Amino acid sequence: MQTLHVELGDRRYPIFIGSDLQPQELLAPYIKGQQVMIVTNTTVAPLYLNHYVTAVEALGKKVATCILPDGEKYKDIQHLTLIFDALLEAGFNRDCTVLALGGGVIGDMAGFASASFQRGVYFVQVPTTLLSQVDSSVGGKTGINHPLGKNMIGAFQQPQVVLADMSQLNTLPERELSAGLAEVIKYALLGDVEFLEWLETHMEALVARDPAVLAEAVYRSCAHKARIVANDEKEQGERALLNLGHTFGHAIESYLGYGEWLHGEAVATGMVMAADLSQRMGWISAEDVERTKNIISRANLPIVCPQIPLDQFLAYMAHDKKVLNGQLRLVLMKQLGQAIITKEFDLELMKQAILANQA
Amino acid sequence: MQTLHVELGDRRYPIFIGSDLQPQELLAPYIKGQQVMIVTNTTVAPLYLNHYVTAVEALGKKVATCILPDGEKYKDIQHLTLIFDALLEAGFNRDCTVLALGGGVIGDMAGFASASFQRGVYFVQVPTTLLSQVDSSVGGKTGINHPLGKNMIGAFQQPQVVLADMSQLNTLPERELSAGLAEVIKYALLGDVEFLEWLETHMEALVARDPAVLAEAVYRSCAHKARIVANDEKEQGERALLNLGHTFGHAIESYLGYGEWLHGEAVATGMVMAADLSQRMGWISAEDVERTKNIISRANLPIVCPQIPLDQFLAYMAHDKKVLNGQLRLVLMKQLGQAIITKEFDLELMKQAILANQA
Repeated sequence: MQTLHVELGDRRYPIFIGSDLQPQELLAPYIKGQQVMIVTNTTVAPLYLNHYVTAVEALGKKVATCILPDGEKYKDIQHLTLIFDALLEAGFNRDCTVLALGGGVIGDMAGFASASFQRGVYFVQVPTTLLSQVDSSVGGKTGINHPLGKNMIGAFQQPQVVLADMSQLNTLPERELSAGLAEVIKYALLGDVEFLEWLETHMEALVARDPAVLAEAVYRSCAHKARIVANDEKEQGERALLNLGHTFGHAIESYLGYGEWLHGEAVATGMVMAADLSQRMGWISAEDVERTKNIISRANLPIVCPQIPLDQFLAYMAHDKKVLNGQLRLVLMKQLGQAIITKEFDLELMKQAILANQA
Repeated sequence: MQTLHVELGDRRYPIFIGSDLQPQELLAPYIKGQQVMIVTNTTVAPLYLNHYVTAVEALGKKVATCILPDGEKYKDIQHLTLIFDALLEAGFNRDCTVLALGGGVIGDMAGFASASFQRGVYFVQVPTTLLSQVDSSVGGKTGINHPLGKNMIGAFQQPQVVLADMSQLNTLPERELSAGLAEVIKYALLGDVEFLEWLETHMEALVARDPAVLAEAVYRSCAHKARIVANDEKEQGERALLNLGHTFGHAIESYLGYGEWLHGEAVATGMVMAADLSQRMGWISAEDVERTKNIISRANLPIVCPQIPLDQFLAYMAHDKKVLNGQLRLVLMKQLGQAIITKEFDLELMKQAILANQA
């Protein structure tokens, strides 16, 4: 087991990364108060809920559960309300803990619920997908979708502790494993060409779910994100680099309707568009773009999206949070493995990069 | 005009207190970004909305408005959603400002919306009731009600600036003026016997809405609260003293149904119960209780509540946020003008204090 500490002053917390983790022992020092609400979904509950209920009850805590339907399309205010209902029906107080057992959607919803219930209670994360292990474990971003945009309503909420157990990835569908790898690749592309080389060496082992190699990828990804977040918790600057591929990706997801493509799949194609535009801007080479497409393909991820009318694609991009004073900013690559956030890009070249990477 | 600064480090902000304040001039340095959403209600909008729209537009900002129905019963998740809808339909970004123009309900809802929209945007408060001027101006508590409890869902969100204009109190119904005076009296009872004497001298002028005397009462109340909040922003300790009368009051409000009694009216009777219990505990004298009832009566506030079955009264108290690990804590008076938070009270005496102050 490896331990990574996310350094956020008095909100410093550990991420435990390994296989067959022992939740009772690992959670014991981090659960304050006597009440724990485990939030999970209908897919994860039959697999892992009993294990965590037993572990937390063994700590002498009162445990209640809230099982939501599985899917991004339920990440809305109506289903968020179900968590509040469960907390109040269980009679839980402001010293309770909300434990998220599931992927990114569960983490986002349970995290926002914990930030808002009684104006803030404790939060523990057990991410059960590769995507949520590398993405949601660090950064404290929580929230829900609105019909007019993704993650439009939420809070910054840091957990007390995160348990990232590679054993749980054995039950993950292949598409979701790949979607997680998209975010792993993102860390390489945005800031670490050496990690890109490591991924080029180990991609087969990752796709084959070698637990030690997966754990190393999760550790490296979380360490990258933790360093960036520690510098910029509220996303005033550097943190926006983490959105490499996301502005294009959000447009793809929004057009197709949430849940049609997985978030990681949309980000994968979005990163290809960002690389393509970076090349058109003269910043990276055609070989760099090919290398980007190649590692994404080897993770069984799409490098092109379906045909989307350009005006609609642009309209969805304009709804992105990286629009500042009406000015779209993009995360692009100044070099392979070195991203920047910029509004200094050519709009015509951007349109070409979008159109060039549609099926 | 007086200016009070609430000292919260990098979230320090001013409260401007006076009559016929000039919003254009006062708001100019504090509105970041180019977009301002003014949230108000159907009662306040015809009186003051145009004035603020004009002032903010004169600053060159894009202004949109969201007019909610008036009343505590609309402080729910459905009506909160209307603010998010308005923000997204106006195309507002993460650098926008939400301006609350109204009483406590509007401040709570607009504040929570500003804390949650895009995980946090800017917030400005223009409280238009005495209650919200002395209570919501300081402390950053925002939120909405749940069918199972008041203010169960929310956030701590500090404003950039607060404008408390006494001229706006001329349109306030008498009951609401008195409800505001309940919170003013609370500051005297919990921590300042000299302020209690000042109120005993000036209660007629306050009820007659003398703007200079009102401004002084608002200034003193906010200064008290600001000092307490600066010491204890997240309500870990001292801040709980501000709940004098509130645990009893919440039970009254909950039983009668939100909106039947005003919050300040319930707190007024709740303070009488707290004083009564403090006397039964042997901490304050019968004269102190009479003085408490007298100043509350002179503010045209109720000192008894309707008959409420004791078991139901206690059940509602148990839902209060001051229950820690299942243990009810109460704010009581160790002396007149000196409150404490304690779980060391006699349950039988508490029941007597509740029953003794019902009509």
